[in-house]
Amino acid sequence: METSNQTGTLTLRARARDFIERPKVTNAILAVIIFNAVTLGLSTSQTMQDSIGGLLTVIDRVVLTIFVVELLIKFYAYGLRFFNSAWNIFDLVVVSVGLLPDKSGLSALRGLRVIRSLRLLSVIPQMRAVVQALLDALPGMGAVIIMISIIFYVFGVMATLMYGAAFDEWFGTLGRSLYSLFQIMTLESWSMGIVRPVMAEFPTAWAFFVPFIVITAFSVLNLFIGLLVNTMQSAVEAEAEAEFEQLRELVKSETDVVDEHVMELHGEIRALRAEVAALKDGRR
Amino acid sequence: METSNQTGTLTLRARARDFIERPKVTNAILAVIIFNAVTLGLSTSQTMQDSIGGLLTVIDRVVLTIFVVELLIKFYAYGLRFFNSAWNIFDLVVVSVGLLPDKSGLSALRGLRVIRSLRLLSVIPQMRAVVQALLDALPGMGAVIIMISIIFYVFGVMATLMYGAAFDEWFGTLGRSLYSLFQIMTLESWSMGIVRPVMAEFPTAWAFFVPFIVITAFSVLNLFIGLLVNTMQSAVEAEAEAEFEQLRELVKSETDVVDEHVMELHGEIRALRAEVAALKDGRR
Amino acid sequence: METSNQTGTLTLRARARDFIERPKVTNAILAVIIFNAVTLGLSTSQTMQDSIGGLLTVIDRVVLTIFVVELLIKFYAYGLRFFNSAWNIFDLVVVSVGLLPDKSGLSALRGLRVIRSLRLLSVIPQMRAVVQALLDALPGMGAVIIMISIIFYVFGVMATLMYGAAFDEWFGTLGRSLYSLFQIMTLESWSMGIVRPVMAEFPTAWAFFVPFIVITAFSVLNLFIGLLVNTMQSAVEAEAEAEFEQLRELVKSETDVVDEHVMELHGEIRALRAEVAALKDGRR
Amino acid sequence: METSNQTGTLTLRARARDFIERPKVTNAILAVIIFNAVTLGLSTSQTMQDSIGGLLTVIDRVVLTIFVVELLIKFYAYGLRFFNSAWNIFDLVVVSVGLLPDKSGLSALRGLRVIRSLRLLSVIPQMRAVVQALLDALPGMGAVIIMISIIFYVFGVMATLMYGAAFDEWFGTLGRSLYSLFQIMTLESWSMGIVRPVMAEFPTAWAFFVPFIVITAFSVLNLFIGLLVNTMQSAVEAEAEAEFEQLRELVKSETDVVDEHVMELHGEIRALRAEVAALKDGRR
Repeated sequence: METSNQTGTLTLRARARDFIERPKVTNAILAVIIFNAVTLGLSTSQTMQDSIGGLLTVIDRVVLTIFVVELLIKFYAYGLRFFNSAWNIFDLVVVSVGLLPDKSGLSALRGLRVIRSLRLLSVIPQMRAVVQALLDALPGMGAVIIMISIIFYVFGVMATLMYGAAFDEWFGTLGRSLYSLFQIMTLESWSMGIVRPVMAEFPTAWAFFVPFIVITAFSVLNLFIGLLVNTMQSAVEAEAEAEFEQLRELVKSETDVVDEHVMELHGEIRALRAEVAALKDGRR
Repeated sequence: METSNQTGTLTLRARARDFIERPKVTNAILAVIIFNAVTLGLSTSQTMQDSIGGLLTVIDRVVLTIFVVELLIKFYAYGLRFFNSAWNIFDLVVVSVGLLPDKSGLSALRGLRVIRSLRLLSVIPQMRAVVQALLDALPGMGAVIIMISIIFYVFGVMATLMYGAAFDEWFGTLGRSLYSLFQIMTLESWSMGIVRPVMAEFPTAWAFFVPFIVITAFSVLNLFIGLLVNTMQSAVEAEAEAEFEQLRELVKSETDVVDEHVMELHGEIRALRAEVAALKDGRR
Repeated sequence: METSNQTGTLTLRARARDFIERPKVTNAILAVIIFNAVTLGLSTSQTMQDSIGGLLTVIDRVVLTIFVVELLIKFYAYGLRFFNSAWNIFDLVVVSVGLLPDKSGLSALRGLRVIRSLRLLSVIPQMRAVVQALLDALPGMGAVIIMISIIFYVFGVMATLMYGAAFDEWFGTLGRSLYSLFQIMTLESWSMGIVRPVMAEFPTAWAFFVPFIVITAFSVLNLFIGLLVNTMQSAVEAEAEAEFEQLRELVKSETDVVDEHVMELHGEIRALRAEVAALKDGRR
Repeated sequence: METSNQTGTLTLRARARDFIERPKVTNAILAVIIFNAVTLGLSTSQTMQDSIGGLLTVIDRVVLTIFVVELLIKFYAYGLRFFNSAWNIFDLVVVSVGLLPDKSGLSALRGLRVIRSLRLLSVIPQMRAVVQALLDALPGMGAVIIMISIIFYVFGVMATLMYGAAFDEWFGTLGRSLYSLFQIMTLESWSMGIVRPVMAEFPTAWAFFVPFIVITAFSVLNLFIGLLVNTMQSAVEAEAEAEFEQLRELVKSETDVVDEHVMELHGEIRALRAEVAALKDGRR
């Protein structure tokens, strides 16, 4: 009886998997995501909010319910293997955000629900491929990213200790310094906005900020070059590999033809030798 | 009679096509475009406007008439196939803009007429090639562009919901948010101009904007790398293909020489066998 | 007598050429350029100007005289071929700037003399190579540069006609519009500084400026990609060419070895046939 | 006795070298660096400073002592060869900064101690590799960097002479001009912040600054392209070299097979000739 029960469970799980992977179902989910993206977009308009605000809230709840049910079915269907896919975890996180209590009146939380529309990236296969390609590039950049992080940390601590007291808004805490250094790295108002005022107080501040800009620009450049060379290499590689394979085939087949003809010669000569031997024997 | 009539029409159409494709005519049109570009440039000068403003208006009408006639001839010559060429549609659109009523006094419309000078890009073959190359690059970037659009939309809705109430000018509507996010993506005054003021109200706003900058920068970077790798691949490919072809020819011809010699050997040996056989026969 | 005279002239020219190309002389000129660059640098300091200003002026006149004499000798030595070298023309221009009357009290002209120090780029061979490489890249970019110029002109005229009246400082004349568009292309304060104020008056201005930014960014990107692919191609080409040549040599030598052995076989078999024939003859 | 003494010294040195290169010791040093980086980070917080400021100072002194001892052991172990490694010199410099007298109350010096945490880059092998890769790229960029320096110097002197009097804050001295030009090169507020105000005084200033921007942008672009092509070339080269080697092997082995068979034919024919000769002899 236990076996049949287990089989029953398995069957139910298999049917759940079957259901959730059916194209019609995935397309329906995609349609819901797009529809929800539109309704969330509409909810930014005050006019829409005033006229059909209630409807939008109802739709949002229905959509959220659909997503939760979908994830529950998926979780039931795959069990713990659900967590093997980073996309499932992504879906789980962005849907969960919508379940956070809304009552606190924090518009921030209300806005965060929208992040759910990013499921478009995880549901459309082409988008998945693009995001995957972006993420695949990350490991190769690991060392340079760690290096940039170390440089940021060291310059951040230095800036806080050196300029924190005088420029509390920009370098008052380590966090503020890191944010300001990020701004400086993006070159936004680095001189007119930050460094010139700092130089008015500390005339040698340029000796701190200009090297920082040069070093981070050079590092980011290298990050980019590394990424580019990797991408290009794998792109060119496949191409060249195919060409070489073709050439290899050609060399093989061409020499095989010659070799075959040489082997036929062997046969001929062996036959000749046999005939000569027969001649010899006949003569004896 | 119908046949001759039809033939007559065909002949007329053929002659129209012949006329409009004649180098002298296309060069004349090009000259008119350049001349018009200059007169439109002159019309920006108040001094010119005061002294020869009337003349400039007359020239503009004449040029517009020439363009309209040219397009009518083209349309007569090619019939509906006129719309097969994107360049014709482009010409039609930029010329049509000049036909819009000017009376409304909208200087915007007056300015739009100038867009007609962009015909330089569609009439000069080298320019066509450059524009074509730019457009050819677009499809390969499709997936990344869609991804960036989705990210823009989601962040735009979020920004409107979260910061719209407090910063109406920047994030009051979805449109304003998208414009502000575009500005932030170009890194223009993103921190001093936008994010620092927002952070004064919402201290955690950096956790929204910094990831947005990093994600879009990384996406644009990948767009660029994809474009670059594609261009390079097709450039290197043709080159390498030719080299491989040459090598293939060489392998073939070289082994063919050897093979021919081996086949000659076959002949020799066959002759030898015949002689040995003759020897055998003679002895019998 | 005319011949001897001509020979004498030729000899004198040859000697002038010899003199001006002598390493000692070119090094001396280089030393003068560097020395002058330093004295010009010193002349920016008020303290220096006060204490040794007179000396600096004397030095400047002496250096200028040396340069003029050098150019005169070169011109005498090479005649009209002097103008065949772009570097000579460059030298002529940057030295001539120093001969402009100084009396007008225009500090601009005083500053322009410094441009003479750019001769460092034309005199040091390595620098010449770098500049040459930069200039060599230009022709390949010609079509895209013309396209960008056309786009700039058209958008410039449009901006002047549409926004010139309201924003005289930025778009009042075609020149001002082109400058403002260049600023916008470099993304400097494009939104906060220019487009947002314009949008306050013309709410649809973003539809003019955002496409302009996207189009020019995309064009510059393509300029850069074209440049990069060209450079890379010629770099990789030479490399690959050598490899292929090596491979070709290998294929040839390897098949030649086999072919030689096959030809030896021919010899052997021919000898064999002769022997068999002898056998036949002997038997007869 | 001298020998034994020398041997004794050598042994001690060898033991010191052994000790300092032991994984446990290098890992301990790494741990100290990370620990110190954290404590230096904590010291930026006023709260931390107030509660455990004394402890942090003590830790800092202890860490500094450890570093000094480590460097002394290294110096003892390697002698003057210590200076052969750029990393050792780097360590020496960044540790020395912490030994500067702190009493002057200069917060700048207090901040400089943090630079010591950059030892993370010199101690972790992967970070060393990244930094090494960055530095390896420098020599190839030498010529372009010198060219940019010359351009900066010339434009700096020109700007000081031409605009220094009117805009003392930006171009008053050569140093200020170079800083302002660096800011302009990074495109930060170049137009709204600097050039437009300058143009209000000197209407043709754009003819100085716009070429400067174009020239430096183009030079930096070339710097980047050179770097990229170098990196790519060495990356692609190794790959292609391996492929060619494989192909070469194939050509060799394939033709060797054919050649071997041809040589066997030689044997057969030689045997045949021997038999024919025997036939001849037998018949005689």
